[in-house]
Amino acid sequence: MKVGLIGSGFMGKTHSFGFATASRVFDLPVEFEMELLADINMEQAETARKALGFRRATDNWRDIIEDPTIDVVDITAPNALHKKMALAAIAAGKHVYCEKPLAPLAIDALELADAAEEAGVKTQVGFNYLMNPMFRLARDMIQSGQLGYIYSYRGVHAEDYMANPESPWTFRHDPAGGGALADLGSHALATAEFLLGKITRVMGDCKTVIPERQDSIGAARSVEVDDVAHAFVEFETGTTGSIEANWVASGRTMQHEFEVYGSRGSLHFSQERFNELHYYRVDDDSNRRGFRRIEAGPDHPPYGEFCVAPGHQIGFNDLKAIEIKGFADAIAGREPEPFNFRAGHRIQSLVEAIQKSSRENAWIET
Amino acid sequence: MKVGLIGSGFMGKTHSFGFATASRVFDLPVEFEMELLADINMEQAETARKALGFRRATDNWRDIIEDPTIDVVDITAPNALHKKMALAAIAAGKHVYCEKPLAPLAIDALELADAAEEAGVKTQVGFNYLMNPMFRLARDMIQSGQLGYIYSYRGVHAEDYMANPESPWTFRHDPAGGGALADLGSHALATAEFLLGKITRVMGDCKTVIPERQDSIGAARSVEVDDVAHAFVEFETGTTGSIEANWVASGRTMQHEFEVYGSRGSLHFSQERFNELHYYRVDDDSNRRGFRRIEAGPDHPPYGEFCVAPGHQIGFNDLKAIEIKGFADAIAGREPEPFNFRAGHRIQSLVEAIQKSSRENAWIET
Amino acid sequence: MKVGLIGSGFMGKTHSFGFATASRVFDLPVEFEMELLADINMEQAETARKALGFRRATDNWRDIIEDPTIDVVDITAPNALHKKMALAAIAAGKHVYCEKPLAPLAIDALELADAAEEAGVKTQVGFNYLMNPMFRLARDMIQSGQLGYIYSYRGVHAEDYMANPESPWTFRHDPAGGGALADLGSHALATAEFLLGKITRVMGDCKTVIPERQDSIGAARSVEVDDVAHAFVEFETGTTGSIEANWVASGRTMQHEFEVYGSRGSLHFSQERFNELHYYRVDDDSNRRGFRRIEAGPDHPPYGEFCVAPGHQIGFNDLKAIEIKGFADAIAGREPEPFNFRAGHRIQSLVEAIQKSSRENAWIET
Amino acid sequence: MKVGLIGSGFMGKTHSFGFATASRVFDLPVEFEMELLADINMEQAETARKALGFRRATDNWRDIIEDPTIDVVDITAPNALHKKMALAAIAAGKHVYCEKPLAPLAIDALELADAAEEAGVKTQVGFNYLMNPMFRLARDMIQSGQLGYIYSYRGVHAEDYMANPESPWTFRHDPAGGGALADLGSHALATAEFLLGKITRVMGDCKTVIPERQDSIGAARSVEVDDVAHAFVEFETGTTGSIEANWVASGRTMQHEFEVYGSRGSLHFSQERFNELHYYRVDDDSNRRGFRRIEAGPDHPPYGEFCVAPGHQIGFNDLKAIEIKGFADAIAGREPEPFNFRAGHRIQSLVEAIQKSSRENAWIET
Repeated sequence: MKVGLIGSGFMGKTHSFGFATASRVFDLPVEFEMELLADINMEQAETARKALGFRRATDNWRDIIEDPTIDVVDITAPNALHKKMALAAIAAGKHVYCEKPLAPLAIDALELADAAEEAGVKTQVGFNYLMNPMFRLARDMIQSGQLGYIYSYRGVHAEDYMANPESPWTFRHDPAGGGALADLGSHALATAEFLLGKITRVMGDCKTVIPERQDSIGAARSVEVDDVAHAFVEFETGTTGSIEANWVASGRTMQHEFEVYGSRGSLHFSQERFNELHYYRVDDDSNRRGFRRIEAGPDHPPYGEFCVAPGHQIGFNDLKAIEIKGFADAIAGREPEPFNFRAGHRIQSLVEAIQKSSRENAWIET
Repeated sequence: MKVGLIGSGFMGKTHSFGFATASRVFDLPVEFEMELLADINMEQAETARKALGFRRATDNWRDIIEDPTIDVVDITAPNALHKKMALAAIAAGKHVYCEKPLAPLAIDALELADAAEEAGVKTQVGFNYLMNPMFRLARDMIQSGQLGYIYSYRGVHAEDYMANPESPWTFRHDPAGGGALADLGSHALATAEFLLGKITRVMGDCKTVIPERQDSIGAARSVEVDDVAHAFVEFETGTTGSIEANWVASGRTMQHEFEVYGSRGSLHFSQERFNELHYYRVDDDSNRRGFRRIEAGPDHPPYGEFCVAPGHQIGFNDLKAIEIKGFADAIAGREPEPFNFRAGHRIQSLVEAIQKSSRENAWIET
Repeated sequence: MKVGLIGSGFMGKTHSFGFATASRVFDLPVEFEMELLADINMEQAETARKALGFRRATDNWRDIIEDPTIDVVDITAPNALHKKMALAAIAAGKHVYCEKPLAPLAIDALELADAAEEAGVKTQVGFNYLMNPMFRLARDMIQSGQLGYIYSYRGVHAEDYMANPESPWTFRHDPAGGGALADLGSHALATAEFLLGKITRVMGDCKTVIPERQDSIGAARSVEVDDVAHAFVEFETGTTGSIEANWVASGRTMQHEFEVYGSRGSLHFSQERFNELHYYRVDDDSNRRGFRRIEAGPDHPPYGEFCVAPGHQIGFNDLKAIEIKGFADAIAGREPEPFNFRAGHRIQSLVEAIQKSSRENAWIET
Repeated sequence: MKVGLIGSGFMGKTHSFGFATASRVFDLPVEFEMELLADINMEQAETARKALGFRRATDNWRDIIEDPTIDVVDITAPNALHKKMALAAIAAGKHVYCEKPLAPLAIDALELADAAEEAGVKTQVGFNYLMNPMFRLARDMIQSGQLGYIYSYRGVHAEDYMANPESPWTFRHDPAGGGALADLGSHALATAEFLLGKITRVMGDCKTVIPERQDSIGAARSVEVDDVAHAFVEFETGTTGSIEANWVASGRTMQHEFEVYGSRGSLHFSQERFNELHYYRVDDDSNRRGFRRIEAGPDHPPYGEFCVAPGHQIGFNDLKAIEIKGFADAIAGREPEPFNFRAGHRIQSLVEAIQKSSRENAWIET
């Protein structure tokens, strides 16, 4: 399977590291070849091609779409371009792997999901954190009933890359698709539904705390998107919980956290130490019980593919390799798509529901 | 100053430990003498009298009120009786120390606050956590501007003493004053206002997760109070945040936590390790910075009164001694009351605002 | 039982807080009355008397010895005076509670232990950390075989109060009884034997890292005692382990730690968070196991005497109250002495064995 | 540069993941091509070839040595074969990358180091942990004087893969090169010298705790190597410290830890959370200081090559890629070899010095 990659920035690199790792770590049902890389000019494209191990480079992403030998289009270009590129790729009958967010607006994400399903191509949206072996363990514990009835849920994704008021206005501040909720809260929402199932209604409180930033040419621009967003969520099961998205949390670089409290057990997790899951078992002897710090190991698939010894720890880029493994299985028809365009649309519709709820001060069904 | 104590259960003991410790640890401006202890029958009262070091015992709490030699009435009786006792004590011109909640309903707490102020007696509501030296440090950092502008706040108080569906219906499940929000959320709210000042509006989501419990005679009783409550809060400063109260959080015994994120620094704290405060300073060198685990020591008053060496740690009962020190200073006219009946009313009105907001699905000004 | 306290500094205060707390928290078999306090002059003695709640004060510690109404002599005077005072108290037939170290040299401690046993008085050496409910839990787990055969032991006591080279020469730097090993290592050794039983041989490595300090009048004095000491230890059971004592560990205020590894389970503990014990159970399911953070609660006696709710935490001074409870039980003949002069001598002989081993570069039987 | 890999087990895989990652993450000065893979039979070799992305496979490792197109021989075969293979590779003029230990005995490692230097080939011994960006940060802090004079050092490497007495006798139990000290202590020693420089003398205490194990055919075999080893170490600077190696530490999977205490600051680190370094700065304000949890980020090279955002975390396999980057730089003549055969010999001679010291109960100069 020949891959065409559009974009070679942060996520372009991460994806290509992921392909390289996945192909060695896993026994993939399809073989990916790094064929063609597109970037905005030939110099950048050629540099990236060499660094990332692609055969050919181009400064025109449409070359990838039009190349009949390309099987998979991997989109890590700026968010605003995702839709156009993905639609073109789908139209060309290619499988599409698109970094999150699928599109700035849910309605566009919906169009993409529909198009992909109609075309019968396989799709994948990048949502790394979900691929953590400890997430799979957590979900197994919940779904098997080991935690009993789930009483409550708490989810957070906080970082600090927008905490400095001097940091400039960027496309992430654009009301169309921008804000902490869209950028980080989307992860918190994806994790919540991954673990506990469908969220049926939300109430939001979105707040801009730095109301003005300078753009790249020094002009003051007003910021309308949220820097901090809180939400109440209710799941189909009746369980209630909260979500926080925050990109001005000084000192936090990766506070993607969840806490799940159930009648027979509880879990807490932080992406700051993502090779650990903390588990409390109600039925342990009363004077011997406490949260167990479970360290990731070969007993937590697919950790063992990376390392045969427990406690050695996988890294962020390895999460991407697991994502690619899942996509490969889907392309081969072995497994359902782990997080396809339909799922990507779902998350964006939740984001928009929370934003709308905040504007209207009312619960919104989702 | 002669003290009369009403009640000798969990909090009665804690208070009397607190008086004993405070009188030795601090150079108190008034001397407290443990004079008279009242409990529901003479046997219990006499046992407690001996154990807790009081001179006399009675099975009639009104003996305390009517005894002209008693200066301070300390109320740790069941919540439902607080109002009647406190009003009687105020009417008798005595200073009153009342365990939280001041009264099941805010309106009653208001009546108490008004009465006390009119009578000119000093009052204190038990809110231990606030007395932690690390809370004082946190507030100093915030108020001095060391954390810059505060972007966001997160507060939680979660325990698990109601997590077992088999645990019986109690007065804490009574709609008048009961629920996790009233019992635990009150602490989270007090901490929030202690640190960041007045909360001006709230939005709540209160949830009953165990809808039925058996009462003491085995009859099924429906539960109408919240087991889990979430709230959005907005402070006078414009900062927004969230509060969670939860008494079904299996595995949690003392998760009273806050996180404060500011433009120049951040804090996080957990009562699970309450002799520590974690502080991030934005201006530390970029490759050397991280959350500092500050351990309580003599540099954090009044820790040094308990122990001259840092890191040795004070205990829960010591927090009560600090509370009593503050009350003594107030009685002596040296300092304002640390947390008087007016403050107690304030917290209960916040609790009721959140409950009302949850019923009405609307923001409530506070 | 009337108590006479000699000394009112750090430990004098801690002891009197301990007596006050113990008498309220526990149902003591004997009643302690704070009768007479001695300090080096009447002003200090009188101030302390008032602050600490004693009836009478004196500037002559022999008044306590000679007072026939005094039953218990509590010695918290400077270490160099412990022996003289304790011998006098024993000779007067009084029970003796002496802060550690019992005497600067083991030979003196031995004399004290012999004298006390001959006189038939009860004795207690202050070794707070041992009284922690979590230590009792740890020992129960080990002795009951729950951890299986113990493979290895690691013990540390590190603080930083001598880390500053500018801090002056004190009596703690006197070769007779001084040094980090004597001051802190004694705690690590006591904990090791408390948990695993008799140490049968040791090998030491004692190091002075700040070879000169100024004394109180500014004169340079050479330091000959250890600032950092390492030891290998072997227990009667055959288990081997290590001990570190360190009073120049910048940033450490209370790193009294142990790790115990056994065939069926393991423990680790730090006095920095002394209301927690971490326990790993080999037989937990392989993909669910991890160190459990057990929080102290009423299931871990005597925590419940201090607080009926788990997770609220006892403080350093409370450990002293537990020590006094044990002493009271011993005086009443209910229980063996928790840590008598014989035990105090044992620890000092271990300290000296390690020092000697370090000088001679040879294992020493103990 | 064509690479020939001998062995495709745990470390063979890790190495080949490392090459794949290094070539994409870094701008390597030489290009590595995965040319030829040797394993014990063609089936295994061919399977591994395909999985790991090599061009050709063989069941005879000498094919790699004799192939004139191979530039780099990478040895991950069983330890007992390292010497023979490495000598052959050196004799053929190839650069050699050899997994640790270089050879079971120091004398063999010395022969290898001499041969390599004489032949002028570049060599590298696999010692992953050293390549951690946080180790580099720690060393920079120490060498720049930021921690002041170093008072003491504590190093541990404890795991539990030999904790089960039922686990069979393996080559790691062979007195020639086996034992916890050789297998794990070697890492602790390498870290100690990486951070603080040359160790000049050692004192050891090696202990077998499971004296008999069954071999693969069920016969009882006596175990003579250490399961737990403790050592005192003294550095050229005069600093003293301790080392523990332990492969029966139930519950520990990766307790590679160090603590460094200095006059101006201190560090502590655990490989259990290897993207963090804890740093205490003496000169921070006295009531604001504490150990800082520094999270790895782009400010800590070469983290930024893996990920442009801090806190995302690199994994164990990424450490191997950094090792390969260093080797590539050495081959290109840009940098000294990061950890060559001479360094590998050094560690093994330290291991043997500790073993000898333990047998002779005497300090050994190193």
